[in-house]
Amino acid sequence: MFSITVRDHLMIAHSFRGEVFGPAQRLHGATFLVDATFRRAELDDDNIVVDIGLATRELGEVVGGLNYRNLDDEPAFAGVNTSTEYLAKVIADRLAERIAAGALGEGARGLAGLTVTLHESHVAWASHERAL
Amino acid sequence: MFSITVRDHLMIAHSFRGEVFGPAQRLHGATFLVDATFRRAELDDDNIVVDIGLATRELGEVVGGLNYRNLDDEPAFAGVNTSTEYLAKVIADRLAERIAAGALGEGARGLAGLTVTLHESHVAWASHERAL
Amino acid sequence: MFSITVRDHLMIAHSFRGEVFGPAQRLHGATFLVDATFRRAELDDDNIVVDIGLATRELGEVVGGLNYRNLDDEPAFAGVNTSTEYLAKVIADRLAERIAAGALGEGARGLAGLTVTLHESHVAWASHERAL
Amino acid sequence: MFSITVRDHLMIAHSFRGEVFGPAQRLHGATFLVDATFRRAELDDDNIVVDIGLATRELGEVVGGLNYRNLDDEPAFAGVNTSTEYLAKVIADRLAERIAAGALGEGARGLAGLTVTLHESHVAWASHERAL
Amino acid sequence: MFSITVRDHLMIAHSFRGEVFGPAQRLHGATFLVDATFRRAELDDDNIVVDIGLATRELGEVVGGLNYRNLDDEPAFAGVNTSTEYLAKVIADRLAERIAAGALGEGARGLAGLTVTLHESHVAWASHERAL
Amino acid sequence: MFSITVRDHLMIAHSFRGEVFGPAQRLHGATFLVDATFRRAELDDDNIVVDIGLATRELGEVVGGLNYRNLDDEPAFAGVNTSTEYLAKVIADRLAERIAAGALGEGARGLAGLTVTLHESHVAWASHERAL
Repeated sequence: MFSITVRDHLMIAHSFRGEVFGPAQRLHGATFLVDATFRRAELDDDNIVVDIGLATRELGEVVGGLNYRNLDDEPAFAGVNTSTEYLAKVIADRLAERIAAGALGEGARGLAGLTVTLHESHVAWASHERAL
Repeated sequence: MFSITVRDHLMIAHSFRGEVFGPAQRLHGATFLVDATFRRAELDDDNIVVDIGLATRELGEVVGGLNYRNLDDEPAFAGVNTSTEYLAKVIADRLAERIAAGALGEGARGLAGLTVTLHESHVAWASHERAL
Repeated sequence: MFSITVRDHLMIAHSFRGEVFGPAQRLHGATFLVDATFRRAELDDDNIVVDIGLATRELGEVVGGLNYRNLDDEPAFAGVNTSTEYLAKVIADRLAERIAAGALGEGARGLAGLTVTLHESHVAWASHERAL
Repeated sequence: MFSITVRDHLMIAHSFRGEVFGPAQRLHGATFLVDATFRRAELDDDNIVVDIGLATRELGEVVGGLNYRNLDDEPAFAGVNTSTEYLAKVIADRLAERIAAGALGEGARGLAGLTVTLHESHVAWASHERAL
Repeated sequence: MFSITVRDHLMIAHSFRGEVFGPAQRLHGATFLVDATFRRAELDDDNIVVDIGLATRELGEVVGGLNYRNLDDEPAFAGVNTSTEYLAKVIADRLAERIAAGALGEGARGLAGLTVTLHESHVAWASHERAL
Repeated sequence: MFSITVRDHLMIAHSFRGEVFGPAQRLHGATFLVDATFRRAELDDDNIVVDIGLATRELGEVVGGLNYRNLDDEPAFAGVNTSTEYLAKVIADRLAERIAAGALGEGARGLAGLTVTLHESHVAWASHERAL
């Protein structure tokens, strides 16, 4: 199995509902380092998993749709706790849609799976892994 | 599949028995960065894998039970080479006991598995992965 | 010259005023890794710069006074752009006050200076350096 | 499952053929951080996955066979795009041959698998995972 | 004193002349992580050292002028060993020219100095520091 | 001003005397990442600060003289608290002696200064800076 990973980041405000979140129930924020990992069993005709330039561009566009925002005000997240692990799934699913739409090229249709990891600090991170 | 990871560290002395360990047969020590990864198939009602505050606290307590010690003097490790990979298992198993005892909350009973990684330097680390 | 550095982090929401900030004029947020460096010419009687336990505790208290907040709502920052470099100064000054008040011990009165660095992402950070 | 990982690095020149590579079609270069991960189900009699000294030495020899070279001039890579993911496989396969030849000791015959990750920058990396 | 730092990277091929360089006399390559640090005594009217967006853009343009090239073929470096420390100076000087030309805005004329650090691997880096 | 830095690491056991050290009065240990920075005003005839190969070798020898030991048993440290900041000075001074003895080559006589930084964990490090 092969994989490539590209990294970007986003900076958002949000708050959580539920006692489990303690002081994070207040409006606060986070920088998330975002690592998107693309997997496939065999390399394509160019000897790569996927065009790293396209992967970086598409991750940048998905991240750009969330960046510099207060997630509490985003209709897409109404009534939802935008936890790190949940946001990893949001980004993975949006990348999967783009792959299905051909945004990473025809070769990317051979991708087997996708993992998105969000680092909220140097001491905590979360991942979502899914098939394609 | 979702996961969250929290990081702590511990500083211990120990020595190894066996020629394979070369100069590490002498009493020396290590700082271990300790990453504990908790996995589950679906998020809970709070939209999280597990309460990151509880996960950090419980990891801190497990690490605290080993920290600032000479492992050669610990009865729990009598006659045992406390290699990085072995200590990863010790910490994973102690976390698993706490999860089973409810220390990470009722929701943590839905956890599927656990991985503990110990970094002994910037150029070497070890992991143990287990089911829950 | 000697120094020791301890790291903590904080997670806040804020917005900026001024066209130069582009999309960061919107309410967003950041995780700041906070590194506090304490400098002195000679080591003290314990052969240290300052008690690293006290340094960690005091940095934690200063960081705790800012953490999990929307800085736009903090009276201390009314009408102020809470840029990364500005926040580095805020934290340095608050640490300097604590040092002057004896919170880091008598020995800390021998400290020569202080630098605080805030990392807002893996690709951008800012520092403030001051004498004591 | 247990694993240990050791890190080394190599510095090479190369170029790519194919429009997908854009400016990387020109002769350029890279520093690759190389992480080799060795996996096995149970620890050996010394309580380890594999002798970390031998693992470091063998990785060093495999890396040394590629280091400080223009890969475009290496017969082994004639007509091949030496992408990061492809080089991860080259290194994994060369390590696997050495393991089979006994270079990591008799105990290493119990290894279940191997993953090699090459970091080409702080924002991009690639892996190859294989059984043994 | 205040500073901000932004990070980019570049990937080049080159070779060195002189026995001191050993195997690095062969054509090889490097990924350089490039950190540009801008210093000033007081913050400007926006409460910043310099517009981080402009700093990132200008560093990107300077880096872009070197990226994906064989430095042995660049007329600007004819007969010159393009060591990591020398390249740090090249990038610092090119940034200084842009600052003098107003590319970082009028406020950047208040900058006191500049440091450029190039990381050639996880175990080696070099810096050049200059006044403005 | 120019500098180059090389990194190595060491793994030792030790204990501290003095109430300020709390649980670190017990025999424990540490991995120290060791960064040695060499500074000079102008580059030498090879366009470098110092031969990075020699710098790495000499740092390795200094580190090797401390590695895999219980510092409490070393005559050189009898009655001394081997704090991180103190060990940074020990390593800096030993490197300075080697530079004076010509171990880094004739060119190294032009070095202006030296800084050694020891990272004891991901959240704490210490430095010693000296002239040459």
